[in-house]
Amino acid sequence: MSALDVVATLEAQEGRGDELVAVLQASLATVRAEDGCLRYDLHRVRRRPDEVVMVERWASVDALKAHGAAEHFQRTSAQLADLLAAPPVVRVLEAVDVADPA
Amino acid sequence: MSALDVVATLEAQEGRGDELVAVLQASLATVRAEDGCLRYDLHRVRRRPDEVVMVERWASVDALKAHGAAEHFQRTSAQLADLLAAPPVVRVLEAVDVADPA
Repeated sequence: MSALDVVATLEAQEGRGDELVAVLQASLATVRAEDGCLRYDLHRVRRRPDEVVMVERWASVDALKAHGAAEHFQRTSAQLADLLAAPPVVRVLEAVDVADPA
Repeated sequence: MSALDVVATLEAQEGRGDELVAVLQASLATVRAEDGCLRYDLHRVRRRPDEVVMVERWASVDALKAHGAAEHFQRTSAQLADLLAAPPVVRVLEAVDVADPA
């Protein structure tokens, strides 16, 4: 079973981008320690101060599902709920043409 | 000057995802040959057949700008214009917490 690359885009309510980054940053260590978490990186977006992009890689679909169900992640999601302008957009990528699959 | 990671999301008009992939796939070799293009990878999105995500890395802001101005890219963009449901969303990522900057 090949790894899953995921790009998740989160948009905070106007002016609350720093709060969004802080909540996510506090969760990074716990998520990275999860089984099958191969990459879980936090990025801001140039000229979009209220947007955050998580670039993730999971060892399997099961690992990604376990992440979504994890209690700590549910707590983080609850914290995010009143911060976000819209639900997160989670895109599971399917490589069509990847030059050097890292 | 550090490299720039970019995630570009493109959405085709309903049912035209395959056409979108074909146009982009035809452009990959030319773009990858551009100065400063470190990564230019084409992905589809699971359960979103009309969406494509380009995961890109550019050696510098200048390299990304030159890409945008390149004649061949302008031609590709013109081809895409009548295929897309909305303008592409190009996000230049700014790392906040990246575990192992590849």
